[in-house]
Amino acid sequence: MKRLPLALLAAALIAGPAAAQTPAGAGLAAGALAARDKALSDTTGWDVVESLTTEVGARPVGSPAMQRARDWGVAKLKQLGFENVHVESFTTSAWSRGPESAEVVGPFPQKLAILGIGGSSPTPAGGITAPIALFTSYQAMLDQPVGALKGKIAVVTQAMARTQDGSSYGSVGVQRRAGPVEAAKRGAVGYLIRSLSTDDTRLPHTGAGSPGGIPAAALSTVDASLLERMVARGKPVIVHLEMASSVNPAAEAWNIVGEIRGREAADEVIVVGGHLDSWDPGTGAIDDGVGVAIATASARLAGQMGKPRRTIRVVMWGSEEQSGSGEAYAAAHKTEAAKIIVAGESDSGSGRIWTLSTPPAAYGHPAMVAFRATLPALKVAFNGAPPRFGGSDIAGLMGFKVPFVDFNQDASRYFDLHHSADDTLDKIDPADVAQNVAVWSAFLYVVANSDVDFRPKP
Amino acid sequence: MKRLPLALLAAALIAGPAAAQTPAGAGLAAGALAARDKALSDTTGWDVVESLTTEVGARPVGSPAMQRARDWGVAKLKQLGFENVHVESFTTSAWSRGPESAEVVGPFPQKLAILGIGGSSPTPAGGITAPIALFTSYQAMLDQPVGALKGKIAVVTQAMARTQDGSSYGSVGVQRRAGPVEAAKRGAVGYLIRSLSTDDTRLPHTGAGSPGGIPAAALSTVDASLLERMVARGKPVIVHLEMASSVNPAAEAWNIVGEIRGREAADEVIVVGGHLDSWDPGTGAIDDGVGVAIATASARLAGQMGKPRRTIRVVMWGSEEQSGSGEAYAAAHKTEAAKIIVAGESDSGSGRIWTLSTPPAAYGHPAMVAFRATLPALKVAFNGAPPRFGGSDIAGLMGFKVPFVDFNQDASRYFDLHHSADDTLDKIDPADVAQNVAVWSAFLYVVANSDVDFRPKP
Repeated sequence: MKRLPLALLAAALIAGPAAAQTPAGAGLAAGALAARDKALSDTTGWDVVESLTTEVGARPVGSPAMQRARDWGVAKLKQLGFENVHVESFTTSAWSRGPESAEVVGPFPQKLAILGIGGSSPTPAGGITAPIALFTSYQAMLDQPVGALKGKIAVVTQAMARTQDGSSYGSVGVQRRAGPVEAAKRGAVGYLIRSLSTDDTRLPHTGAGSPGGIPAAALSTVDASLLERMVARGKPVIVHLEMASSVNPAAEAWNIVGEIRGREAADEVIVVGGHLDSWDPGTGAIDDGVGVAIATASARLAGQMGKPRRTIRVVMWGSEEQSGSGEAYAAAHKTEAAKIIVAGESDSGSGRIWTLSTPPAAYGHPAMVAFRATLPALKVAFNGAPPRFGGSDIAGLMGFKVPFVDFNQDASRYFDLHHSADDTLDKIDPADVAQNVAVWSAFLYVVANSDVDFRPKP
Repeated sequence: MKRLPLALLAAALIAGPAAAQTPAGAGLAAGALAARDKALSDTTGWDVVESLTTEVGARPVGSPAMQRARDWGVAKLKQLGFENVHVESFTTSAWSRGPESAEVVGPFPQKLAILGIGGSSPTPAGGITAPIALFTSYQAMLDQPVGALKGKIAVVTQAMARTQDGSSYGSVGVQRRAGPVEAAKRGAVGYLIRSLSTDDTRLPHTGAGSPGGIPAAALSTVDASLLERMVARGKPVIVHLEMASSVNPAAEAWNIVGEIRGREAADEVIVVGGHLDSWDPGTGAIDDGVGVAIATASARLAGQMGKPRRTIRVVMWGSEEQSGSGEAYAAAHKTEAAKIIVAGESDSGSGRIWTLSTPPAAYGHPAMVAFRATLPALKVAFNGAPPRFGGSDIAGLMGFKVPFVDFNQDASRYFDLHHSADDTLDKIDPADVAQNVAVWSAFLYVVANSDVDFRPKP
């Protein structure tokens, strides 16, 4: 991780407290602390994710459930008092799972638990049967020359480490994201990976992959280990794979929007949100019902501290998992980009925020001084480096130089559940949701009630 | 738990040490300690369950996999040096699962994760659709009068507590075992329970139930909670249930036997085993591959201490889950019952033995004194009460007054996994297996190399 030189950071932070002594700074400081403390006993965040997972459940883009989610989102924002609630439509490609099964047919017949990787091709009717070529690291498969996997089902069983910052999803995740294409290049007729999971349940974890024109699926971690043990016995292991799926290249999708309109500078907008779509096996609780809930509850709470100067806008993005919503949002708001003060997305589950970064240009502003003062009691460390990534759905805005924040949630347990049937409400601790809402509320409050500018001075 | 009066127990235990000073007692004591210590570094138990789960996997009675398990068992016993390896056939009723699905169709359409309860009736083709009547305790359903559930799918969501002695499976388990009949009596057209599970994964847990003539299934704990939240919203919750199954009333099954023949009293037999059949969703690792492994490894190890006086017999029972193997074994060995010195079964997973009981009549025998001396280092408490239950597969022998032991394994984690797809090898700690083998090896050694008699004197 790249960090600012310490001296520079220290100077910027020291500049703060003096500025905070101004009446404006003092008011912001008190308001930020009040927003934080109110959030810790407010149940709106929990209520929103409880409602979504109970009344809608899984909501893959392109599905009837996503239409119900759209209606739920509009109704929920109105119910919570948001203004200018509306739907922004777009179209995107939507891959849908059909029946899927896999089994070892020899030498030790056993069923395997799989979930197709998004973008996977179906098998021919009746499936495919082929010997496997198993690699315990992704690199070992990449080391194979073109043609080396001809007629084989390539299997990669590299395991993912548990990390607080979730970084192992980046490094090991490539076996799901790029693996289908790489396996196909080398001649494979099918591709299986060990799920990107840190858990040991027999539930596979899905997710998007680059379509390689071959059937591609994730094994549960249990089944990946089982295949390793079979292969260790030295005889060819033959797998039968049967997968159906369909693609709608122009599925209708929606970003759902609600605002708390600013009283003085309504055209200056803070964009915050989560994504409403989910993968199909769970109920989209931690990914990303809870992000939608955190953003919605935080905006509402910041607005309850008094009508803000600037506009706080909540966006429930409608196609993050298979991409499309961030791109559509940026395209629709390109002309507004210069007026978007800052953007943020909550999309790493329900773990507590443990560190965060904000754009360095505003370190010394009273609003940011006030915000940082809310953090120690929430056990959040301020990271004096520029934010690295704000979220998939604001990546398009980032491309237009919209400033963004990076609030890092503890991801230690996230990949036990992520993209699996275990992504359900019972895995969420309401106190964790409240801590997230406390951080975001305080942030939204100070930005919406000040003239803080995150863009570097020209 | 009923206990012997303390004074009686103390007298019996004090009688021991003096007797142990005899040369026979001293030899037994040294041998028991040696068997125990050898077991702690012996990997046979792990190797056996690794082999079974990898090379056979799930093996429900009546399935082709159970035929492979039979062949595996015969080969494994021979490979490990057992004598008189043979198969004892019997027939039993075998229920087999077909395709199953469940979903809420209104007011909040969502899929539900279920597994049919063994003995369940199939639904008609196309399934059934009915409103649910949800009870958060089994008693609340029993309190309904006959006819009160007419046209409804009864749902019981009572949760199971985590217990070290596994006793919650007895008390809450009645909702699976007797519930289908009781729901049908009250007019229900279907029956769903919260799985008998202490875990929060979205994997349901199956198991046997008394056939009530209606479709009956277990929901994952996650889905049971989901239905509770839907019902709390006050509108009728409608569920569609589709289940297929078949019953073979006379499926061929097998108890697999191997012996270490006694050198002096070969007709005096110690019977120890686990059950080879399993439910279908997992690989039968903790239930009861590991029990088979513990019994097999312990018998082998006891035999490796020198040819024993008496015969040690390992039995891999072939139909415990749907019953039949214990009954068949008792019927086939009725005339031999008086010569069976003691019987035991390992069938509570891979948790360590934390307490155990042996028949009081032999407390003072040098063999038992020697055995008890092995326990403190293994962190096993001697329970000075008569054994209560030795295992389903020796219940028939118990009916013929065959003495039995009750070695209690720590069941704290057992019901996270039991009868679910999560019953897999990776959940087993080899060190736990070794501790079990150490206890059983020491016990088998002292009984096989002494004249200890567990039957009360006439």
